Amino acid sequence: MIHGKEVFEGVEWRIRVADGSSEVLVQETGLARKAWLRIKGLISGLAFKVWMFLKRAWDMGVNDPKKLIHCIKVGLALAIVSLFYFMRPLYDGVGGNAMWAVMTVVVVFEQTVGATLYKCLNRVCGTCLAGFLAVGLHWVANRSGESFEPFVVGASVFLLASVATFSRLIPSAKSLFDYGAMIFILTFSFVAVSGYRVDKLFDKAHQRISTIIIGTSLCIIVIMIVCPIWSGQELHSLIVRNMDKLADSLDGCVTQYFNHRGECTNSNEEADKKLQGYKCVLSSKASEESMANFARWEPSHGRFNFRHPWKQYLKIGASMRSCAYRIEALSSCINSEKQAAEFIKKHLSISCLKVSSSSSSTIRELAETVKTMKKSSTIDLLVGEMNTAVQELQNDLKSLSYLLNPSTIPENKKMKTSMEATATVPLMEIIPVVTLASILIEIAVRIEALVGAVKELAKLADFATHDDKSKQTKTKDKFVPDEKQSEGTMKAFQRV
Amino acid sequence: MIHGKEVFEGVEWRIRVADGSSEVLVQETGLARKAWLRIKGLISGLAFKVWMFLKRAWDMGVNDPKKLIHCIKVGLALAIVSLFYFMRPLYDGVGGNAMWAVMTVVVVFEQTVGATLYKCLNRVCGTCLAGFLAVGLHWVANRSGESFEPFVVGASVFLLASVATFSRLIPSAKSLFDYGAMIFILTFSFVAVSGYRVDKLFDKAHQRISTIIIGTSLCIIVIMIVCPIWSGQELHSLIVRNMDKLADSLDGCVTQYFNHRGECTNSNEEADKKLQGYKCVLSSKASEESMANFARWEPSHGRFNFRHPWKQYLKIGASMRSCAYRIEALSSCINSEKQAAEFIKKHLSISCLKVSSSSSSTIRELAETVKTMKKSSTIDLLVGEMNTAVQELQNDLKSLSYLLNPSTIPENKKMKTSMEATATVPLMEIIPVVTLASILIEIAVRIEALVGAVKELAKLADFATHDDKSKQTKTKDKFVPDEKQSEGTMKAFQRV
Repeated sequence: MIHGKEVFEGVEWRIRVADGSSEVLVQETGLARKAWLRIKGLISGLAFKVWMFLKRAWDMGVNDPKKLIHCIKVGLALAIVSLFYFMRPLYDGVGGNAMWAVMTVVVVFEQTVGATLYKCLNRVCGTCLAGFLAVGLHWVANRSGESFEPFVVGASVFLLASVATFSRLIPSAKSLFDYGAMIFILTFSFVAVSGYRVDKLFDKAHQRISTIIIGTSLCIIVIMIVCPIWSGQELHSLIVRNMDKLADSLDGCVTQYFNHRGECTNSNEEADKKLQGYKCVLSSKASEESMANFARWEPSHGRFNFRHPWKQYLKIGASMRSCAYRIEALSSCINSEKQAAEFIKKHLSISCLKVSSSSSSTIRELAETVKTMKKSSTIDLLVGEMNTAVQELQNDLKSLSYLLNPSTIPENKKMKTSMEATATVPLMEIIPVVTLASILIEIAVRIEALVGAVKELAKLADFATHDDKSKQTKTKDKFVPDEKQSEGTMKAFQRV
Repeated sequence: MIHGKEVFEGVEWRIRVADGSSEVLVQETGLARKAWLRIKGLISGLAFKVWMFLKRAWDMGVNDPKKLIHCIKVGLALAIVSLFYFMRPLYDGVGGNAMWAVMTVVVVFEQTVGATLYKCLNRVCGTCLAGFLAVGLHWVANRSGESFEPFVVGASVFLLASVATFSRLIPSAKSLFDYGAMIFILTFSFVAVSGYRVDKLFDKAHQRISTIIIGTSLCIIVIMIVCPIWSGQELHSLIVRNMDKLADSLDGCVTQYFNHRGECTNSNEEADKKLQGYKCVLSSKASEESMANFARWEPSHGRFNFRHPWKQYLKIGASMRSCAYRIEALSSCINSEKQAAEFIKKHLSISCLKVSSSSSSTIRELAETVKTMKKSSTIDLLVGEMNTAVQELQNDLKSLSYLLNPSTIPENKKMKTSMEATATVPLMEIIPVVTLASILIEIAVRIEALVGAVKELAKLADFATHDDKSKQTKTKDKFVPDEKQSEGTMKAFQRV
């Protein structure tokens, strides 16, 4: 809007200047023309920037309607609380302190239910505690005589503000009552200091607490009724989404390594986006922690109980990050220019692809487990498959020895590898693919840790057991792993 | 304090109960005794928890005196602002609105100068802008007649609150005026709505703005005069500290891999702490970003100008994290049980240790460059050394081929390696150490990227050229690298 106005003013100005004979003006005022062009450039530059900003904002709104809904909710809550000013009985009831209700809505309203509840509870508790303490202090200060009163009040404000600020810096306290401590300082200073002036202290306190309760109740009602966004649900979805991204990245990296690059230029951008998925996992630690912190304030909602083990999600997140570190290593294998000899890649490609596909299906199954909140019946099978694939890869790695030194080939294997082993291969041509393979093996180990973390979650959150028939038939033709198979990878890995 | 009181009450209670003959009481009231024991247990448990909390808080204060100073500063600022209430002329000057000054101090006072300035500027701008808009709205609403007024006000509050909230969700806007947008909503709602009630709107606005300016000025004075903590300085130190940690981790990992583990059990804990240093680098992204965001609000201080290239620090941080990912891979090499055959480790240990020590001295030199803000005269030498070490490692890797296949040893090398190459070594025993070596080579590549980022910083921030004589003599006996040597690692790496 600002832009449109400016452009209009600019146009108007030119018409006024060019009034009469425009040609003369142009010739006379080459400088004016230059200035005009510069201003035009500036304005159009600004207009372009504003336009890009608006476009980005619009895209954001379209891509993430939750944010738009949040904005509308804030507007709604504020418009409702403004009504207090227009309804005389309500306004008089809180003694003209309706301002505090407005303020409460503005500062307390957050995107998710958990964050709002955290702030509401902290605000109410902080205000009450500080109010009581300040009234007590006021009583003591009154007893100490008028000349001492400022010193008593000043010293106590100094002391309590320092202590409360200090408590905000202790990590364990910070996550619980950071906001409450700030409100405590605020209210305590207000009441302790204004006690010197305002006689009707109790009335004031009563009014303030009631307005705050009006504000917080309104916030809680609006946030929980109008399209509620739950921190817990968001954390849950984030974990599931990140698992899928991890699986996509893993698959993508290994496939791209063994295929010729640039084969499918059409969907290149999308494929690149998939490959970079692991970066989301690497960078989501902070948001996971804050969501888990807010989620514990939320009441039972959807499939989540009040005491849902949110902390276990953080452990799953950490486990996923440790996989993502390795996928980062994989992706740098792709990007590095040192490539193994083609036929060695071919030698290992089948088993590497098998490991990656079984690993990624394990991750996808874990994502499905978390998503549906049902214990998976196939996860042990999948882990078993992954371990078998790892073992096959290890066997293939061992057989690489024969490529390096053909004289060591046992008689029974000579037929199979004779095609490739006609020439001795230098070690340096093998290293890249060996590195890739050992990264893959380690990813499998870390996926097993991830499986453990998800199983722990399933136990803690009491996931339903899965008895979906279709899934069982789907995996019927696959081999049945023995009990200890799922722990096999670690041992197999140690044997390498 | 709470703890001490409770324990005292507990003791008192027992004395009262045991008044008279305690033996009779004990026999008569086995239940009471049990209850007493339970309460005692509860109290001592609580006391222990409180004690531990206090102890941790004390440790935190001792380890990080900056936090203590911050707390004292908050207390000081609040105590000063409280004086407004006790000085009648000042109090009357702002029409009893001194409350806003207290509130401003509480919400605006942050740990660092940058964060406080950011909040102060946002608060003042947001308040002024919202004030003007609200007064304009009030004028329009007055013109529209009494029956329409609530609707006009309500609709405009709804609209502006939604738009301002939306702007807070756009990342680029968020870093600039997140807090300002909140204050804008707050002030706009206040003024727009209270315009209906309060006639002296301009007086009110004037008072509020002057109290806010009093509060912000006081905050700025206290935060900049009493032991100022600058975001920029903190970011600078964090980057230097993280570089040192990176170098320690790298050195530690490689040394531990090639030495027998548990050799130095004495300083085990400290060594472990050093090894884990890279984790700090991995997890400091969020704090780096917020510091860089606040640092740009800070005026020229110490060795930093107003327009110091803080964003370049983020690039350096990203570069360090990409090294840290690889060090994470190194550390999992140490921890994995699969170890290479001892004599192969020995074969590569010298060159691996050389790469790691030259890499870590390069990082340490970079840390020194950033710390002293002087261009390093030795960095190119160190990078050259690192590249030479990488090349040596690659040669050693190549010579591993002969271990696998002794028949390929050239005549001139036979003497040297004959001791080890008496038996053929299976590939699987070589893989672990080959993996380690290729990680080391890649770390060297990433360190070169880090060197580039630091050089860019030196250029942007106009670091002084280093002409310290002592350093030059120290490196005089080292070889002089040719121009292109510093780019050599990447190419060498590509050749592998």
